[in-house]
Amino acid sequence: MSSVLKITPLGGLGEIGRNCTAYEYDDQIIVVDAGLMFPTDDMLGIDLVIPDYTYLIENQTKVRAVVLTHGHEDHIGGLSYLLNEVPVPVYGTPLTLGLVESRLKRRNLLELTELWEMHPGDIIDEGPFTIRPFHVNHSIPDSVGLAIETPVGLVVHTGDFKIDHTPIEGEPTDLAELARLSAEGVRLLLSDSTNAESAGYTISESALRDTFERAFSSAKGRIIIATFASLLSRSQLVVETAHTMGRKVALAGRSMIDNVAIAEKLGLLKIPPNTMIDLNTANSMPDDQVCILATGTQGEPNAALARMATGRFRGITIQEGDTVLLSSKAIPGNETRIYSNIDKLFRQGANVIYGTQAGIHVSGHAASEEQKLMINLLRPDYFVPIHGDYRMLHRHAAMAREMNMDNEHVFILTNGEPLELNRTSAWRGEPLEMRTVLVDGLGVGDVGQTILRDRASLARDGFVVIRADIDAETGNLIDDPEVITQGFIYLPESTEFVEETMEIIRNVAEHTPASKDGNTEQLTLNLRKQLERFFHDETQRRPVLVIMAKAR
Amino acid sequence: MSSVLKITPLGGLGEIGRNCTAYEYDDQIIVVDAGLMFPTDDMLGIDLVIPDYTYLIENQTKVRAVVLTHGHEDHIGGLSYLLNEVPVPVYGTPLTLGLVESRLKRRNLLELTELWEMHPGDIIDEGPFTIRPFHVNHSIPDSVGLAIETPVGLVVHTGDFKIDHTPIEGEPTDLAELARLSAEGVRLLLSDSTNAESAGYTISESALRDTFERAFSSAKGRIIIATFASLLSRSQLVVETAHTMGRKVALAGRSMIDNVAIAEKLGLLKIPPNTMIDLNTANSMPDDQVCILATGTQGEPNAALARMATGRFRGITIQEGDTVLLSSKAIPGNETRIYSNIDKLFRQGANVIYGTQAGIHVSGHAASEEQKLMINLLRPDYFVPIHGDYRMLHRHAAMAREMNMDNEHVFILTNGEPLELNRTSAWRGEPLEMRTVLVDGLGVGDVGQTILRDRASLARDGFVVIRADIDAETGNLIDDPEVITQGFIYLPESTEFVEETMEIIRNVAEHTPASKDGNTEQLTLNLRKQLERFFHDETQRRPVLVIMAKAR
Repeated sequence: MSSVLKITPLGGLGEIGRNCTAYEYDDQIIVVDAGLMFPTDDMLGIDLVIPDYTYLIENQTKVRAVVLTHGHEDHIGGLSYLLNEVPVPVYGTPLTLGLVESRLKRRNLLELTELWEMHPGDIIDEGPFTIRPFHVNHSIPDSVGLAIETPVGLVVHTGDFKIDHTPIEGEPTDLAELARLSAEGVRLLLSDSTNAESAGYTISESALRDTFERAFSSAKGRIIIATFASLLSRSQLVVETAHTMGRKVALAGRSMIDNVAIAEKLGLLKIPPNTMIDLNTANSMPDDQVCILATGTQGEPNAALARMATGRFRGITIQEGDTVLLSSKAIPGNETRIYSNIDKLFRQGANVIYGTQAGIHVSGHAASEEQKLMINLLRPDYFVPIHGDYRMLHRHAAMAREMNMDNEHVFILTNGEPLELNRTSAWRGEPLEMRTVLVDGLGVGDVGQTILRDRASLARDGFVVIRADIDAETGNLIDDPEVITQGFIYLPESTEFVEETMEIIRNVAEHTPASKDGNTEQLTLNLRKQLERFFHDETQRRPVLVIMAKAR
Repeated sequence: MSSVLKITPLGGLGEIGRNCTAYEYDDQIIVVDAGLMFPTDDMLGIDLVIPDYTYLIENQTKVRAVVLTHGHEDHIGGLSYLLNEVPVPVYGTPLTLGLVESRLKRRNLLELTELWEMHPGDIIDEGPFTIRPFHVNHSIPDSVGLAIETPVGLVVHTGDFKIDHTPIEGEPTDLAELARLSAEGVRLLLSDSTNAESAGYTISESALRDTFERAFSSAKGRIIIATFASLLSRSQLVVETAHTMGRKVALAGRSMIDNVAIAEKLGLLKIPPNTMIDLNTANSMPDDQVCILATGTQGEPNAALARMATGRFRGITIQEGDTVLLSSKAIPGNETRIYSNIDKLFRQGANVIYGTQAGIHVSGHAASEEQKLMINLLRPDYFVPIHGDYRMLHRHAAMAREMNMDNEHVFILTNGEPLELNRTSAWRGEPLEMRTVLVDGLGVGDVGQTILRDRASLARDGFVVIRADIDAETGNLIDDPEVITQGFIYLPESTEFVEETMEIIRNVAEHTPASKDGNTEQLTLNLRKQLERFFHDETQRRPVLVIMAKAR
C-alpha cells in the first residue's frame, strides 16, 4: 500500500461548497481546503454544512497540514471545525490567511494554530509531497492552484479558477507555469467544474469598466453598488470608476468594511487618495458625488442592501433618484428574496440595475472553453472534475472525453470515494461512509434526518399538546383536559374547535376501560386515533400531536 | 357616482398569480379572472393563495358574472372559492371551461354553476358592459383578451398574451381586431407585464421545430420530454415531431393525460393516427421508437419526472441512453429542486437537455417590444400594467412613458386600489383594505401572520414541552417532571441534556415559593427564564417552549 497515492474528496462533489480533499501517501496526509456549504431549503434551521472530517479525525496522527487555495467560505469556512479536532499547521497566501485569522480568532483557535504564509513559486515540502502553488484568477485576489509532486507523479489541483488575460487586480492565471508543469508531465488533474454548464469563455473583469462608466455617467443621484464583499477586484473597479467620475465611496456592511481593510493593508486593493468617506459624510454631500459600496447581493435579510430596502439601515435611506446596481449573480435558491428586495428598492423610488442583461457582473469561474484549455494545456494522464453539482461534474467529464481522454482515465467521484494511483494505473478505492455534517448553533452533526423531518412536519402544520390526567382507579378524568397548540389553528377564532377537542378527550377517556396499573397506553392510543381523525376531517392538516396522559 | 367606472384589482399586482379584477359601473360588477398563486417560501405549510374576495362578497348582489381569459391556474384556480361565496355565471372559451369543469366538479360546484361558452368575435351584454373577446397567443390554447365597452369608453384587458406570427397551434394574436379597437378609440389599456424584464421579442413557438427535430435525431435511446401540462402547443409539437421522426408517444402524469384528452376532444390538439401508445406498450418497444411526454418541469416531488428521477414512477425506469428534455423554464423559487432533479437524472445515466442555452423552450408572454407594440397599436388614453411583480409593472409603466404617454395617464396600482374613470378623466379611488388569503387544507384565510411566525420558529428549532405538577400546599414537585421535545435535539443521544433539564426544573420548583392558591404563574415564569437560558447556552437554539405547570 505504501506505493499508492490515495486522494479522497471529503466534500464538494455533487454539491456546491464545503470543498475538501485529502491527499495520502505512505501514512501521511495533507488536506487541500476545508470549506463550508450553505444549507439547502430542506435543511430547516441549519446554519451551515461542513465536510465529514471523521476520516481525518480517525487518522489525525497522519495529517501534516491543511493547504488553502483561496479565501472563500466554501474553501475556508469549515477550517475551524477541522482544527478544533485535528490541530495542524495551515498554509495559505496572505489574503487567505488574513481572512482565516479573523475566523480562528472568533473561535479561540488563532493562538493554537500555526499559520504559514505561502506565495506562488514557493516550494513546500510536507513529507512525501512537494507543493508548488501557482497564481490563478478568481473572484478573490491571492488565489492559487496547487502543483503537488508525489511519488507517483505530478498532480495539479486547480482550486477555483478562471483565465482572465486582462484582470482588474493582479496578474493573469500563470499559463507559463502551467505549460512548464505540462512539460514535466501531469499524472492527474483535478479541475474546477462550477461553470461547466456555460458555453464559451468567461468575460474578463476588465469588460466591466465600460458598463460601470456608462452606469455612473447616466446616474443623476447617488449610486449604490452591491457586490460580494470578497470580490475585491469589483471593489477595486468601483473605487477606480468613482474616482474617475468624481464620486467618493462609502462602505456599507460589516464584511465589506473588514475585507476592504484587510485587502488594502496587504496592498491588494489600491485606493486613490481622498476617495473613501464614511456614511455620515456621504449623507452631507451632493447626491451626484456619492457612491456606496454595499453587501447584500443575495437578499440576505441582515445585509446592508436588504436593510436599506426595508428602511432598517441606519444612515442611508433609499430615495427617488438613487441608482442601485446589483453587481452579482443569484446563487440558486436565493432568487425569491433577491427579487423581493429589488421590488422593494423600486417601490422606494430607486432605479435598480440587475440581471444578466445589464452586463454588470462576470463570473469568477472558468467556462467550458477555459476548462478545456486547462485540460489541453496540462494533458494529464487522469482527470477528476471537482467542485460542483453532479451535472457540472458530468459535463466537465464529458469535455475531457470529447478531447480524446480515455473513458477509463476520467473519474467522476463522490464524496468519500477515493481515487488511488500508483506509477502505472489509477482505480477507485474503497469508499468511506460519509455523512452530511450539519451545524446548528453549537451543535455539529447532532441534527440529522429525524430532527429535520420533525421540523418539516412542524413547519407544515404546527403541533398540539394534550394533557389528560385520569384517576388510576376509575379511569375518569381528574380535571379538565388541557389543549395547547401553535402553528396549527388560530386560537382566538377557534373556541368551538378547542371545545370539540376537549369533548373528544372526555369521550375517549370515558370509553377507555380503566387501567388498574396506571398504564395509560391504551388511552393514549385511542386519543391519538380519534384526535388525528378529527383534526384532519376538520382542517385537512396533520399537526404533530403530543399526548401527555397520566394516571394517578 | 353612477357615471364612474371603477376598476379594482383584487390580486395579481405586485405579485405573480391570483389574477382578478373587478369592473364596476352603476352598481353592477363583472369580474375578470379568478386565479390562484402558489405560496412563497415564507408561507410555511400553505397550499395556495387566492384573491381577497371580501369586496365581492360584501357586494354580491351587484356581481353579474365572471369572465375568464384562459385556463391557467393563475387565472382560474381561485374560481371555486369565489363561486362558493358568490354564485354567478362564468364565461369562458371551450378549453377554459373544460378545465374549469373538472375543478368545479371536485368541489361539488359544477351543478350549481352556469357556464357560458364564449368565442372570439362574440358580443356579450352584461348590464352596462359589452364584452367582446379577441384571440391572443399564449402558452395555452383558446386564450382571449377582452374588449370591454363601458359607458365611459372602451377598455382593453389583454389577459396573458404574446404575439406569435407563426404559432404551432391556432391563429396569431388578432392584430386586425386590435387595430379596429384602436380605431374605435381605446380609453384604457390593462396589459400583461410578466415579461417586462425581457428585451426584444419572444421567439415564436415554431422556432422550436428545428431544435426539437435536432434533439430527436441525435437521441439514440428513448426521449422523455417534460413540459407544462397546459402548454398544449408544446404537446402538439412533440406529437408532430415524434410522428415525423418515427416515434410513438406515451403520456406520463395525471394532468398531462387529462389536458391532452380535453384538448383533443375540443379539436385543439391534432394527433396523427397511431401515434399514441400507453406506457406498457412503450416499455415493450425498441427504445429509439419511444417518446414519453411527462409532467414535472418544476421538480414537483409527486409529478412524473421527479418520480422517474427517484425510481418511484411505476412503469418507467430511467436508463443509460435516455434523453430527457426539459421544455420549460424555472419558476422563481423552484430552482433548487429542479436542479436536484436534473442531477438525479444524470446520475441514472440519462442525458438531460435543459436551460436557456438549449433552446427548447419559448415563453408564453410578450417581451418588451411586443408590450410596446400593444400600447402603440391601441394608443390608449390611460394605461395600467397588470400581472406581475412590482419591478415588472414599473418597467412596463416606464415603457408607456417612453412612448410619450403622459405620466399622469399611467397608473401603477396595487391590489385593492381602484382606478376610477369618467368621460373626462381618471384618478385613484379609495383603496380597499386587502389581505393575502392563504388556503391551508380546508381553511381559507384562517392562517395569518401569527401562525406563520409560529411555524417559522418551529421549523428553525422545534419545540419542548415541560410538564411539572406541584403540591399546592408545599410547592414541591409531586412527581418527576416530564420533558417532551421534537425538532430540537436528538433524544437518543441527549440523555444527559434531558437529565440536566429535569434537574433545573426541580431546582426552580424548590426555590419558587409555594403559591397557596394553586397559582403557578411565578413557577412558569421562572421555569421559562431558566430553561430558555439553559437551552440557548447549551445549543444556541431557541425552541418553542410550552410549560404545563399545575398545582393540586
